[in-house]
Amino acid sequence: MYSVSPFDSALYRQLLSDKEAAALLGDEAQIAAMLKVEGELALAQADCGLIPLDAAAAIARTAANLTLPAIKLAAGTASAGVPVPALVKALKQALPAEQARWVHFGATSQDIVDTAQILNCRELLALYEGRLGRAIDRLAGLAASHRHTPLAGRTRTQQAAPMSFGFKVAGWLAPLLRQRQRLAELRPRLLKVQLGGAVGTLTAMGEGAADIAARLAKRLTLAPAPGWHTQRDSLVELADWLAMTTGLLGKVAQDWLWLSQTEVGEIGFNNGGGSSTLPQKSNPVNAEVVVALARHNAGLVGQMHQAMVQEHERSGSGWTQEWLVLPAMLMGTAVALHHMLDALAHLRVDTGRMQANLARHNGVIFAEAATFALAAQMPRDRAAALVSAACQEALAGSRPLLDILCEQSGIRLELAQLQRQLLEGGATAPWLDAILAEAAHPPHH
Amino acid sequence: MYSVSPFDSALYRQLLSDKEAAALLGDEAQIAAMLKVEGELALAQADCGLIPLDAAAAIARTAANLTLPAIKLAAGTASAGVPVPALVKALKQALPAEQARWVHFGATSQDIVDTAQILNCRELLALYEGRLGRAIDRLAGLAASHRHTPLAGRTRTQQAAPMSFGFKVAGWLAPLLRQRQRLAELRPRLLKVQLGGAVGTLTAMGEGAADIAARLAKRLTLAPAPGWHTQRDSLVELADWLAMTTGLLGKVAQDWLWLSQTEVGEIGFNNGGGSSTLPQKSNPVNAEVVVALARHNAGLVGQMHQAMVQEHERSGSGWTQEWLVLPAMLMGTAVALHHMLDALAHLRVDTGRMQANLARHNGVIFAEAATFALAAQMPRDRAAALVSAACQEALAGSRPLLDILCEQSGIRLELAQLQRQLLEGGATAPWLDAILAEAAHPPHH
Amino acid sequence: MYSVSPFDSALYRQLLSDKEAAALLGDEAQIAAMLKVEGELALAQADCGLIPLDAAAAIARTAANLTLPAIKLAAGTASAGVPVPALVKALKQALPAEQARWVHFGATSQDIVDTAQILNCRELLALYEGRLGRAIDRLAGLAASHRHTPLAGRTRTQQAAPMSFGFKVAGWLAPLLRQRQRLAELRPRLLKVQLGGAVGTLTAMGEGAADIAARLAKRLTLAPAPGWHTQRDSLVELADWLAMTTGLLGKVAQDWLWLSQTEVGEIGFNNGGGSSTLPQKSNPVNAEVVVALARHNAGLVGQMHQAMVQEHERSGSGWTQEWLVLPAMLMGTAVALHHMLDALAHLRVDTGRMQANLARHNGVIFAEAATFALAAQMPRDRAAALVSAACQEALAGSRPLLDILCEQSGIRLELAQLQRQLLEGGATAPWLDAILAEAAHPPHH
Amino acid sequence: MYSVSPFDSALYRQLLSDKEAAALLGDEAQIAAMLKVEGELALAQADCGLIPLDAAAAIARTAANLTLPAIKLAAGTASAGVPVPALVKALKQALPAEQARWVHFGATSQDIVDTAQILNCRELLALYEGRLGRAIDRLAGLAASHRHTPLAGRTRTQQAAPMSFGFKVAGWLAPLLRQRQRLAELRPRLLKVQLGGAVGTLTAMGEGAADIAARLAKRLTLAPAPGWHTQRDSLVELADWLAMTTGLLGKVAQDWLWLSQTEVGEIGFNNGGGSSTLPQKSNPVNAEVVVALARHNAGLVGQMHQAMVQEHERSGSGWTQEWLVLPAMLMGTAVALHHMLDALAHLRVDTGRMQANLARHNGVIFAEAATFALAAQMPRDRAAALVSAACQEALAGSRPLLDILCEQSGIRLELAQLQRQLLEGGATAPWLDAILAEAAHPPHH
Repeated sequence: MYSVSPFDSALYRQLLSDKEAAALLGDEAQIAAMLKVEGELALAQADCGLIPLDAAAAIARTAANLTLPAIKLAAGTASAGVPVPALVKALKQALPAEQARWVHFGATSQDIVDTAQILNCRELLALYEGRLGRAIDRLAGLAASHRHTPLAGRTRTQQAAPMSFGFKVAGWLAPLLRQRQRLAELRPRLLKVQLGGAVGTLTAMGEGAADIAARLAKRLTLAPAPGWHTQRDSLVELADWLAMTTGLLGKVAQDWLWLSQTEVGEIGFNNGGGSSTLPQKSNPVNAEVVVALARHNAGLVGQMHQAMVQEHERSGSGWTQEWLVLPAMLMGTAVALHHMLDALAHLRVDTGRMQANLARHNGVIFAEAATFALAAQMPRDRAAALVSAACQEALAGSRPLLDILCEQSGIRLELAQLQRQLLEGGATAPWLDAILAEAAHPPHH
Repeated sequence: MYSVSPFDSALYRQLLSDKEAAALLGDEAQIAAMLKVEGELALAQADCGLIPLDAAAAIARTAANLTLPAIKLAAGTASAGVPVPALVKALKQALPAEQARWVHFGATSQDIVDTAQILNCRELLALYEGRLGRAIDRLAGLAASHRHTPLAGRTRTQQAAPMSFGFKVAGWLAPLLRQRQRLAELRPRLLKVQLGGAVGTLTAMGEGAADIAARLAKRLTLAPAPGWHTQRDSLVELADWLAMTTGLLGKVAQDWLWLSQTEVGEIGFNNGGGSSTLPQKSNPVNAEVVVALARHNAGLVGQMHQAMVQEHERSGSGWTQEWLVLPAMLMGTAVALHHMLDALAHLRVDTGRMQANLARHNGVIFAEAATFALAAQMPRDRAAALVSAACQEALAGSRPLLDILCEQSGIRLELAQLQRQLLEGGATAPWLDAILAEAAHPPHH
Repeated sequence: MYSVSPFDSALYRQLLSDKEAAALLGDEAQIAAMLKVEGELALAQADCGLIPLDAAAAIARTAANLTLPAIKLAAGTASAGVPVPALVKALKQALPAEQARWVHFGATSQDIVDTAQILNCRELLALYEGRLGRAIDRLAGLAASHRHTPLAGRTRTQQAAPMSFGFKVAGWLAPLLRQRQRLAELRPRLLKVQLGGAVGTLTAMGEGAADIAARLAKRLTLAPAPGWHTQRDSLVELADWLAMTTGLLGKVAQDWLWLSQTEVGEIGFNNGGGSSTLPQKSNPVNAEVVVALARHNAGLVGQMHQAMVQEHERSGSGWTQEWLVLPAMLMGTAVALHHMLDALAHLRVDTGRMQANLARHNGVIFAEAATFALAAQMPRDRAAALVSAACQEALAGSRPLLDILCEQSGIRLELAQLQRQLLEGGATAPWLDAILAEAAHPPHH
Repeated sequence: MYSVSPFDSALYRQLLSDKEAAALLGDEAQIAAMLKVEGELALAQADCGLIPLDAAAAIARTAANLTLPAIKLAAGTASAGVPVPALVKALKQALPAEQARWVHFGATSQDIVDTAQILNCRELLALYEGRLGRAIDRLAGLAASHRHTPLAGRTRTQQAAPMSFGFKVAGWLAPLLRQRQRLAELRPRLLKVQLGGAVGTLTAMGEGAADIAARLAKRLTLAPAPGWHTQRDSLVELADWLAMTTGLLGKVAQDWLWLSQTEVGEIGFNNGGGSSTLPQKSNPVNAEVVVALARHNAGLVGQMHQAMVQEHERSGSGWTQEWLVLPAMLMGTAVALHHMLDALAHLRVDTGRMQANLARHNGVIFAEAATFALAAQMPRDRAAALVSAACQEALAGSRPLLDILCEQSGIRLELAQLQRQLLEGGATAPWLDAILAEAAHPPHH
């Protein structure tokens, strides 16, 4: 029993893998899906009169009940470079010769592997959609409940201007809503049958070949399609979606790492990882893993694009490269979504620290707001110059920015009013409302 | 004047760059677009009553007429890490102080850079769409005119079974049709305004901020949207589309390299590159460049995914990484489309060589067809065994496969009939027709 | 039991994995190595007087004999984000309290994980070196035995000029010799102990800390070194070497795919993969897998470079990303070397086809040689013009190039002599000899 | 004039490009180097008696003085896919026919392009070495001067234990020393001549071909070597070194971004970038650019590995891909080194903030040290339990950790003593000294 990949390792499984996704990606799931495709193919061929109905029924029944341990197909897979010849042989052996001869009739190995993969991808899409929906719900709730919580907006790693924590959360949420839409768009392009035969023309299935392909699609509740053996765009679109999903989660998790630093401390996690020798430590393990998976998927996605350059009607090397990449991306996305949900369930928001961090440096974070406030009563350039000078003094010395400004301009600015304006003014309310409204209405498919 | 990148080099320009795309990607285009955004922003703010109408009109007019050489903004760009402060300063200097104070009012640098980039991307999408459409038309014509031309279908680098060249071309064409659809889908998500102010809340623009953003969008014929400073999904979706496009072209070009090899010789190019010392050579330069660009974009696309992990409200490092990557992808796609069209205009199809290559090895490529033909008259397993043995003999010896089979089975198979069946049978006709029909009907947007 | 990665799958194991490498990469090997490090650390600390000798002896003995199933550490790994706390706890539980307190004294989790990984990498380097050496021997033998076998040299996918097959093989071999040298150079930089404690200063081990680290290194036959928790250059150097190795093998395998095409047929493999419906097919599975792994490692290596950007003294996300990448690269390299050796053992060289392919197109491949031969008797430009025109005629018509030239120039060129000159002339002999000489003398380390 | 890449843009030049490197990478430098190779090749061939001495002298002289604007070669480059045929033609046109005929005698385009590139790479290596040396000196000075400055060591984004800032700097420095060593090792493998002729055998140069190649190498002060047209390992090794260099700089710059955050504030830069509307901002532009370039090179390096898979004796597509990648990596590394030096020249260290940040959270960062100190007087487990409980209390409440411990254990721990021990104890001093000693002794080559 091997465990080279953390996705398979017993040691790292609970940290870096996912049981539900594994059940859809492992050998057993692949073999079961391939057998299902062989069975349904026979039935579709019988439906269209190509092969005898009783043979088809026997094939489908046997395929449905056959238990084929992966290990039994290993040698054949190594020799042919693909598991299907060995699987077909085993399926035939489980049938009377008269019926066995109709197994895999006119199909090519890639028809079976690709269609089986699409079937399992369909289940995975449902899994992603569910988890994505739960993350959306959680984030929407968080955004709504913190729409009046002040925190420092930060740009280029520096405090820039105050904003509400709820609005920040809405910025995490908004692209996930678009991601839900993209999922709906790619679904019909991805969930389609692969049936082309040796070189994509399905010649061996005779005049009714296209009907058989359509019939098989219908039986599997997939879209019908001409064969796409070396047209890998739909799988690449899936890979793009996966990497984009983890990239968006990675942005959130990266924010969490910055926000939960000891010196910032605005959020924390109740399930932080402990250290063997440092009792005070609480490591943001969920967030770290999500960032790692975001960068991993971002590193893998280009390989799916590289693997598009497949020569002629079917390519051994390009196709094999996909096998090394896509399962890892599918798993990584499931794991990242899991950690995101786990972190959200354990998230602790420290509104006191948020307010305290805003007050650092004598309130210079209110500089832009002060400039605009003063500009209502004097030329903007003068206001800007006043505030700029006052900022230098506030940063260097010990007096608050607004006090300095009051002394120099004779204009009294109220911190609380400025802050309220910053938190709830501008486009904050309409945009936050629009995002929350969209979050509440998932698309139907 | 530098020329580190072949996209900019005078030396490599005609080989690896594209004048039309360069006009949309260069410094001048960027500066012009940024000035346009500043001008329209002022007008939108005046529309909504935030700034005086005459100031806005002056800003817009001045921005439209200002000639700002890139070199004048270079020092300011280096100091601020972004060109906008220097650009705003130059624009202000071209205006009376009273009006200058309203330039860039409440906006942040990224608002200007991102919106300007979107404007230029819109032009580039039109360029891609046009070229893609022409490639589709060419390929559709080629597929239609060669639907009865036989050639060897090849899988895993080996001759597998005969098919028609037209059907092979349809396999190049089909995913480009889906790519056209994806372009229509991403367009509304991509072509949207960026206006968020310092931390994304647009606070400095007051209560009407969201209206101003919507108004600016309308003026620029972009979609309105909440700010997306660190939500980079739409740009990444664009990058994915670009890499997928070049990947699909790369698959075609890779096929061309295999088909135009000296020993295969089924296609050629009238514009092949010459060699200084080898007079007989004709190098498939177009195809080589397309493959190189496909792999280049595939190598770059992951970086756009990496750059999604941007901290907080705006990230200097992630954003800068995009600047190093996206223009190259935008250019590479334009260049690849150009080479694809150029190659199609110079493509020479050698139907004689296609037929001759089919006849190699005593016709063993007809093995599958022979099996199915024999299976009509005997159990399939026996047919398969007969053909398998005959193949070994044909490969080793000097007699055609069908002769051997006739001798051994007493059944006479007609090569011409088998070939016709292979070329036009199966799903060839309906699928080819469906692809051509779709190619003839571009989507509207 | 999961099997998401083909490196772990029972189904794909014989095709895409490697038993020997798996034994060094799996959970068991990792746990065993970590226990060994804990044991030797205790002994090193006792050697230096930090902890009691009897405790150290007990720890080392217990660690050496403890069987810790991975599954027992899974929950602790998930909670801490790293397996060490759970492993330390289990080791302590297997010891009396008095001795248990000295387990993992003053170390940090990363010390154990990294050093354990280095120990297993050492075994893997030996495995690579052995396989690389065997590949070098095979290729050297092949180059030597075919130094007089003519074949067409091909540039930019076109036949260019004749050369010897032995020289072509030497071109596959030469960079592997440099790769052997690079391995010798990286070894001392890679095979070093990691022991830094919580923040890299090893403070908890007191004044003798540096001595303890050196002592541990000596016990493990590793180089001593200051801690390198977030200095990942040596692991990245390993990754670079791995990707470069598979890249070089991939170039060879790619040549094999081109050479073994049906229409070229200059080499073949006795172990080609069969097809379920195409009896004549023999698919070059080894070569396809090597190309796929070359592109996979090339896709992964950038991630190891990405993961170098680790913040502060230890980074959870960057380190985790390495775990997702490096084992796959280590395995992929072992598998690629295996397939290379397997293919070499089954390689069939068809010298007849090599000669026949040279004769295609009326010998225009001899154009350059003819030019130089004629240039001995006339101005070079005239010779070039003559040959160029003759090439066009030869390509278009039915007469051999040399006949046309003879008729037009009155100079008779002997094909056999030209070919001999091409095969054995120029720098062929001295360079081939130099490469073979170097291949025969592996470096010592 | 194009400017698609920021490396060439007048707008971004001072931010993202480098004048010195550009002078070695641009069209002019490439053309000059190619002409130099053609000239020296002629001289080497004359040295060995292959071509007339006077012709060689004329060729060399003309090549040295010829001014060839890139634009004149653009059309020829596009047609041939490589600039050399056009360059050779132009060089011939500048010579009398009698001498012109000996230009480029028996060479292939790739010989010229590759050797010219190696010549320019040699200059770039010197540039890198100089800048790396200066960065090493700066960092060594910084490490030495802050060896007693306390700061919080941070692991997994959390404060972990105190250490000295000088030791942290030494951790930035140490891998740069190894990088200097790697540069010395790769230099002889990289700086070698490329001269193979059409298919690598140099046949057209006759029996003395290998001597000519060696002679050319000597004239160019490069190492002699058999041709390496499709053996790209040495260029890939260079790319690996480049990406590793920027990766190491990126780690430093990433630390700077974390350390210079508003809430941490332990370092700052006197040249921080300003903001148009936020007067208090000072953006760490240098560090942001270095991180962006580190991730850019990490994204590019895999492409150089991908491009290794080049078919046969010369590959158009793989070679072209290199041109799109390697110049960008060479430039990016120069720029990153420049920004690193610029940042070091403007670095401001705030030792007060370092000390203040250590004192946060009631000194829980001293937990590990306290545990070890208490363990000297009680069983370690009891010490650990005591400290763990006290940490919880300190984190929750308002009393310092050491006070709580004193109350509960009766043992008085001195903060100043603990801190001194943490700063200067363990392996800090010997490791820091060793790193500084090595930094002071650059290798000779």
